[in-house]
Amino acid sequence: MAKAGKPAYSIGVDYGTNSVRALLVDVSNGKELASHVYDYPTGQAGILLDERDPNLARQNPADYIKGFFSSVRAVVKEASKKRQFDPKDIIGIGVDTTGSTPLPVARDGTPLAMLPRFKNNLAAQAWLWKDHTAHAEAAAITETAIKAGAPYLAKCGGTYSSEWFWSKILHCQKSAPQVFRAAYSWVECADFIPAYITGNLDLRKMVRCVCAAGHKAMYNDAWGGLPDKRFLRKLSPELAQLRDRLYEKAVPADQLAGRLDAKIARKVGLPTGIAVAAGAFDAHTGAVGAGVKEGTLVKIIGTSTCDMMVAPGDRKLKDIPGVCGIVPGSIVPGMYGLEAGQSAVGDIFNWFVSHLSPAEFRDGDPHANLTKAAKKLGPGQSGLLALDWNNGNRTILVDPLLTGLLVGQTLHTTAAEIYRALIEATAFGALTIIKRLEEYGVSVREVINCGGIAEKNPFVMQTYADVCNRPMKISRSAQSCALGSAVFGAVVGGAYNSTRAAQNRMTAVKAQVYKPNRANAKVYAELYALYRRLHDAFGTEKYKGSLYAVMKDLIRIRDRARKA
Amino acid sequence: MAKAGKPAYSIGVDYGTNSVRALLVDVSNGKELASHVYDYPTGQAGILLDERDPNLARQNPADYIKGFFSSVRAVVKEASKKRQFDPKDIIGIGVDTTGSTPLPVARDGTPLAMLPRFKNNLAAQAWLWKDHTAHAEAAAITETAIKAGAPYLAKCGGTYSSEWFWSKILHCQKSAPQVFRAAYSWVECADFIPAYITGNLDLRKMVRCVCAAGHKAMYNDAWGGLPDKRFLRKLSPELAQLRDRLYEKAVPADQLAGRLDAKIARKVGLPTGIAVAAGAFDAHTGAVGAGVKEGTLVKIIGTSTCDMMVAPGDRKLKDIPGVCGIVPGSIVPGMYGLEAGQSAVGDIFNWFVSHLSPAEFRDGDPHANLTKAAKKLGPGQSGLLALDWNNGNRTILVDPLLTGLLVGQTLHTTAAEIYRALIEATAFGALTIIKRLEEYGVSVREVINCGGIAEKNPFVMQTYADVCNRPMKISRSAQSCALGSAVFGAVVGGAYNSTRAAQNRMTAVKAQVYKPNRANAKVYAELYALYRRLHDAFGTEKYKGSLYAVMKDLIRIRDRARKA
Repeated sequence: MAKAGKPAYSIGVDYGTNSVRALLVDVSNGKELASHVYDYPTGQAGILLDERDPNLARQNPADYIKGFFSSVRAVVKEASKKRQFDPKDIIGIGVDTTGSTPLPVARDGTPLAMLPRFKNNLAAQAWLWKDHTAHAEAAAITETAIKAGAPYLAKCGGTYSSEWFWSKILHCQKSAPQVFRAAYSWVECADFIPAYITGNLDLRKMVRCVCAAGHKAMYNDAWGGLPDKRFLRKLSPELAQLRDRLYEKAVPADQLAGRLDAKIARKVGLPTGIAVAAGAFDAHTGAVGAGVKEGTLVKIIGTSTCDMMVAPGDRKLKDIPGVCGIVPGSIVPGMYGLEAGQSAVGDIFNWFVSHLSPAEFRDGDPHANLTKAAKKLGPGQSGLLALDWNNGNRTILVDPLLTGLLVGQTLHTTAAEIYRALIEATAFGALTIIKRLEEYGVSVREVINCGGIAEKNPFVMQTYADVCNRPMKISRSAQSCALGSAVFGAVVGGAYNSTRAAQNRMTAVKAQVYKPNRANAKVYAELYALYRRLHDAFGTEKYKGSLYAVMKDLIRIRDRARKA
Repeated sequence: MAKAGKPAYSIGVDYGTNSVRALLVDVSNGKELASHVYDYPTGQAGILLDERDPNLARQNPADYIKGFFSSVRAVVKEASKKRQFDPKDIIGIGVDTTGSTPLPVARDGTPLAMLPRFKNNLAAQAWLWKDHTAHAEAAAITETAIKAGAPYLAKCGGTYSSEWFWSKILHCQKSAPQVFRAAYSWVECADFIPAYITGNLDLRKMVRCVCAAGHKAMYNDAWGGLPDKRFLRKLSPELAQLRDRLYEKAVPADQLAGRLDAKIARKVGLPTGIAVAAGAFDAHTGAVGAGVKEGTLVKIIGTSTCDMMVAPGDRKLKDIPGVCGIVPGSIVPGMYGLEAGQSAVGDIFNWFVSHLSPAEFRDGDPHANLTKAAKKLGPGQSGLLALDWNNGNRTILVDPLLTGLLVGQTLHTTAAEIYRALIEATAFGALTIIKRLEEYGVSVREVINCGGIAEKNPFVMQTYADVCNRPMKISRSAQSCALGSAVFGAVVGGAYNSTRAAQNRMTAVKAQVYKPNRANAKVYAELYALYRRLHDAFGTEKYKGSLYAVMKDLIRIRDRARKA
């Protein structure tokens, strides 16, 4: 329990795809005193790209370190302007990052990318979550696990992803063997940051989080941690050898990673020794910061979407095909953490704005302009239907080798109509995930949204409400991920004795709820049936239906909607 | 034969979708002395639209009349600047128009749209070829003909189109009965203009062209002209009654429609009594102007595409499913005229530029800028594949209830990549037509292209050569349709005693030929197989194959092309 009377604060540090944010909060009520964003300086919006390969996405680990110093120093400075605040009252720090974002490291824990000879080598950088170069290796891992009858895929939807730990390492071995050989081991970004700031880079002692291990590295206590060497050897003998240089145990984020290192504390204007929580993934702390509990689906809508739920840890849960992970303690310690998601949401809207939005929408904020125009249309009026697969499909198909699709364009189709169709496509993708969860007995009684798009675009939220035919709530904090990390900071700092207790005080939803419009929901039900037909035809091997009616049904729905 | 020594000229008047062009040529060699374009002033680029119904496209008949005066007066004036030219030496006028573009007319032949009470009534205007409002009626006509075992569809590909004469009249009866009742009869634009300028609007005597009758109105001597009343009565009793107020006989364009009326001649600065040829469709005179002969496919590439061939009139020709028409004398008198086509080509590129081309391509000519960027890519590199159905599919599916489709987009897909995919899609559509013709024994030994896009965009022509894996030739005249009309003007004016003889002297191809690139053709063969799969899946009822491989194959081809 938070000690009444004495002020106490926690800092959540949230490493996103393009920037890192520090958030300084009052642990008694979640009030946000200061927030600061540091944009990664390297690459394109912080991402290293390769124009010959759209699947490649890497990051410079030095940006992470600079980002910690800049953002944390800034919030401490900002909060210090308030009379009641004293940096000495900061009791904990929590850290979340993207993932799976593994880094090859030297024997002393230094990222290879920070050594001069690997500075400019793309394979030596952090392999950002959305890097899909390892799709062949992911397929090989899935196939190998199925052939071997190994249990490892049971908790990650039955299909291993190109976005995940082992695929990336295996791809590095095949495509950049000199980097693979130079790497003593591999560390998830979520483990690297807490280790770095606590001065605990020793690979044998480094605290590893169960988010990364359980969801991305096939770690599970049921089979003794990471996959066994016999299995790994089938993929590559070198991978089996690497296992000895990885880890045996992973912990939830209410566990201590260490205490803030003196040198680092000085740099950011904090006292030495502050409790630092074990790392977690941004989506997981986001769920915590948005107030996830049994029956609540938290959707973190940003460049991509993460769909997070928890289920009681004492009941047996069916494995759910296509759901990225079911891992004990990965969100709220003591409960199962379930993770699903869409590989691109905001990224699709950004793609459209960057590459296809015409001049008349460019003045000011193109997203706002396009949204305004899209909002004037009714469901079905454009005659368009899109698949939200520009970055592959994470849930429920777990297939990076899928692409976007747009159907229904005429000679009169406008940019605003397409923009709306893309928003609707992401909503259909969201509904597909909800349906899959419920089919397998995880009922979704409440949806809380957070992330930039949920915050800023009421039209997107209304569309989600109409498409899913459910109310959409919004997390009170605009920074749910950072807030969730601050919740863990508060727990390891001793303010609360459980994550749930900390959530009860530190998190909430906004008063405004987006309620489904019945008439819109009816049209979207028809459109969803067509979406699902395209989804199954292009995304599954077994589909045998006809697509002949798709264009005709879209025209029929369009003509009816325009006459209404 | 042209009389040697004495100068003689002919005027071709070509009514297009957005404008009318007059071309004044020397009949001895096809040399073009003057050309003038008049843009229709009414509507959007000459087209009356209805924003509630993207299928609607009408035109103001008054624009046609103004257009004749302006354009013909202008070429006569322009040519008169040359010393050797004398308007008295003009021996003939030929006229071509879009079609099927029927106009409802009063008993005296006046278009209803020119009467005050119908001036603003959309149904009383000319129903432009690309108006697709009558798709339900087209389907009803097809169904009725099949049920009745009537032969009428044998010469138009087995499916009646919403673009054609009877569908439009039937739709008018159903959707605007007051216009239908007020119309004494209906006249094709191609018949209206020659009748108007020869002062011969008397509906009983008006000369009707076999292009419109044979290709669009199910007219054929084999079954006694237009469909019989018993058949028409099944569609509507009023339609059966209308048959008596239509026509019994249609003629090829080497026949005289009449002689230039005195009042009209005065207005345009010409002598009275010049021979005026029976009308024809633009695509048909375009084929003539491009030098069509047995084995030559003439592609007229503009907003849409017409694919024209001729076959010997003395041999029996198989009916070809999906080919819009096989009509004796409709292109070159004495030969079968074959017409196929794509409902939108340039219109698709224009749509993309109008609605989706981003700022960086807007400076100057967006088409030129996008083409330049698209040209830098190789086949398959974008990973994209499109269907060219934004305006439905004319050949080989004859289905207006189809729409565009784009697949393969990632988060990096650029506007230039999409623009290229749209060009390729139209090339795949072109290849589909060639394949269908050859399957039914009409071999394509030469392809001559004409029209704005063939003239102006070498990249499009090279893509067509690569996709079709055949050389692409270009008509020497940039105005093949108007030139073809001038050819008929020369014939009715007595300069030649056959169309073929006039073509031999007046038409030619350019020296530059686009030859297929072997490596590109190989990649396109793979892409065409995928195009065909989408084509059959969305466009036919019977397709039972899987589309699961489409996205994956596109990615595989893309990755290989990028590495090459």
